[in-house]
Amino acid sequence: MTLQESVPLNASDMPLSTAGAQVLKNGLSSSPSDIDPSQLTITLATALKQLPDPETLVFGEVMTDHMLYMDFAPERGWSSPQIKPYGPLSLDPACSCFQYCPSVFEGMKAYLGPDGTPRLFRPQLNMERMARSAERVALPLFDADTLLILIRRLVAIEARWIPRARGCSLYIRPTLIGTRPSLGVSASTHAALYVILSPTGPYIRDPNGKGLSLLAMSDQIRAWPGGTGGFKLGLNYAAGFPAQRIAAALGYQQMLWILGETVAEAGAMNVFAVFERPDGELDVVTPPLDGTILPGVTRASVLALLSYQPPTAALPQLSAHARIRTAERALTMSELFAASATGTLREVFCVGTAAVVIPVTRIGWRRPPPGAKDGSEPEVVDIVLPAAGEQGSLAQALWQRLVDIQEGRVEWEGWGVTCGTPDA
Amino acid sequence: MTLQESVPLNASDMPLSTAGAQVLKNGLSSSPSDIDPSQLTITLATALKQLPDPETLVFGEVMTDHMLYMDFAPERGWSSPQIKPYGPLSLDPACSCFQYCPSVFEGMKAYLGPDGTPRLFRPQLNMERMARSAERVALPLFDADTLLILIRRLVAIEARWIPRARGCSLYIRPTLIGTRPSLGVSASTHAALYVILSPTGPYIRDPNGKGLSLLAMSDQIRAWPGGTGGFKLGLNYAAGFPAQRIAAALGYQQMLWILGETVAEAGAMNVFAVFERPDGELDVVTPPLDGTILPGVTRASVLALLSYQPPTAALPQLSAHARIRTAERALTMSELFAASATGTLREVFCVGTAAVVIPVTRIGWRRPPPGAKDGSEPEVVDIVLPAAGEQGSLAQALWQRLVDIQEGRVEWEGWGVTCGTPDA
Repeated sequence: MTLQESVPLNASDMPLSTAGAQVLKNGLSSSPSDIDPSQLTITLATALKQLPDPETLVFGEVMTDHMLYMDFAPERGWSSPQIKPYGPLSLDPACSCFQYCPSVFEGMKAYLGPDGTPRLFRPQLNMERMARSAERVALPLFDADTLLILIRRLVAIEARWIPRARGCSLYIRPTLIGTRPSLGVSASTHAALYVILSPTGPYIRDPNGKGLSLLAMSDQIRAWPGGTGGFKLGLNYAAGFPAQRIAAALGYQQMLWILGETVAEAGAMNVFAVFERPDGELDVVTPPLDGTILPGVTRASVLALLSYQPPTAALPQLSAHARIRTAERALTMSELFAASATGTLREVFCVGTAAVVIPVTRIGWRRPPPGAKDGSEPEVVDIVLPAAGEQGSLAQALWQRLVDIQEGRVEWEGWGVTCGTPDA
Repeated sequence: MTLQESVPLNASDMPLSTAGAQVLKNGLSSSPSDIDPSQLTITLATALKQLPDPETLVFGEVMTDHMLYMDFAPERGWSSPQIKPYGPLSLDPACSCFQYCPSVFEGMKAYLGPDGTPRLFRPQLNMERMARSAERVALPLFDADTLLILIRRLVAIEARWIPRARGCSLYIRPTLIGTRPSLGVSASTHAALYVILSPTGPYIRDPNGKGLSLLAMSDQIRAWPGGTGGFKLGLNYAAGFPAQRIAAALGYQQMLWILGETVAEAGAMNVFAVFERPDGELDVVTPPLDGTILPGVTRASVLALLSYQPPTAALPQLSAHARIRTAERALTMSELFAASATGTLREVFCVGTAAVVIPVTRIGWRRPPPGAKDGSEPEVVDIVLPAAGEQGSLAQALWQRLVDIQEGRVEWEGWGVTCGTPDA
């Protein structure tokens, strides 16, 4: 099925994707029902909130008027989906999500196109990743295409919340949590799936703040082989909070996660480094999807845009002479420091749904001094990237192009998916 | 302060431990108040639940009538603690605990002593670990001694729920969750702390089931150096659920977690192996607390009991000739398999609050066949421990002694802490 059309008011004419329905396995002998969009009930809020000033938006603080909600019980499958006023969840204190953290989330954004229609950016990739993440923590599964139909409906209803200013959007947070009310340490047989929306401004407001500073610490590990770094799970994040505080105390904005000295991610974003060869060609390198790296939608889109030949076909802002080679391979701190010293490290940038593309201005590495004995105080060594994010940089060109596609000024390979309007 | 007395009805005469109060730091410039037991309010349920049949208890399914609850907001610190009827939590869908999993829990048990007084087992160790775990995920901190005072009060009120049969107890689940209602990926400034109780039977009911079967899989990693395996965090558990299903499908009851081929934990328990030297002396080995291993209260107690000389001083069930040496050192799968082949592997057992001590009857290791090419189907090789848990085994002697101490038949080094009764 195609997701390019707007969502009709009556959802009953949208059959379940049979391919997707097979995803529902969950080890159950009975056959619980999958999400049924024809059973959607919509209860609108009687009083709507006042829209916030787009200039003062702080990421994730303000929620819209409505949410999408459904829950799963093993004997009946998924409940009828509801769009209803935003409000608290009522959950048993023994629920799995409080005790053992089977929690999955996604991050997507809705933009207003030039014609005023809400648009999503490659949302199928988020839905597929959400289904994979649910399986990783043994949560009840769901049909990803069907969930997307319902999210497009919610976004259409909340269209007034999408900020119009460039770089602003309506952040979409699908969440799936285990709600089995029992302390037994095993998979959650029950779940709640909900989607909440939050209007959001540009990632960095300060016009002088051209980019991010990152701190790598050898003793702080985000993910490891055989672990969960390749999935969008809540449990990948809380363990990083103390490291974030250390980074902030040392004057860095985000963590650069490393494993040994191999670069993994930055904050909650994927990382790219750009090296210049003697002949002027650019090597654009990002860590491979080895299980420790989140398969980011922006990461995949950046790799796709950079693989066009000539590069200006996808990135018209680039110089006509630009030559680019991409590689998904391990990237080490030593390599970054060596290339910085010889002047061949052109750019480092981070990509993700929240920031789209953001240049890195400085990288610190906190480690024991070379040749130091165990227990000696770590030192911090820095790389500075002075030209980060300047006109003509890859980060700039990618940001421009991606935002143009996301906001519907450029149609590209079917990446934009419209949401219609509630009255369409 | 000593915690050996019963809790008086009026808690106002119990000052905050000043040492503990200093734990409250949380990076805040203001000085929010710590938990104040003198502000405790008690609201009893108007109708009490019927007690379940102790024969049919399933771990963690039935909750008692009341819970302890308090919450933290940065501007005011901890709210007044409440003991109130057990009931649902009402939480904003954006709360950190659903999104990024800052969740801490503890597992303790209450037993009825011979005089009918409820008793806890070394609960200070659980409270200190809970405070350390809270710090690991940057949650608001609390005074551990004060929390214990309140838990003893709750247990005294719920004393009728403590099953009297040997091996039965009232399981105590303190839980601390981040409740900041924002999607920003950073430490939760808000939290809820609650304690719920669940009556529980023996770990294994089947009299023929003398012990556990465990499966180790080389591609399933629970914890990693620099990670969180040494803390009691909800986020350590959900990622193990799919592995648990694989183990069950292959006929094993729990996972034996390994890192490379080094043994870590089993299920949610610590692991011990017993090797016999040529001269008859027993080497009792458990993995060291290197950051990947939970510092279990039962683990520490087993090591303490085994370190007495002669061993019968602490473990009178042992033969008078028993000689024992304990070691906290790395334990590998190859070592276990080699010792099993030569007949020097006497016992493997798991220890934890739920099971106390439980022998292991069989260990499977699922790995690529030796010399196999990449991608070849893994094979499972087994160790069988036929004499697991028999009379005279260390596992038996430790279980007996620990249960005697826990249930107050033996007073030992101040490990038992009484809870008084609500009317005392």
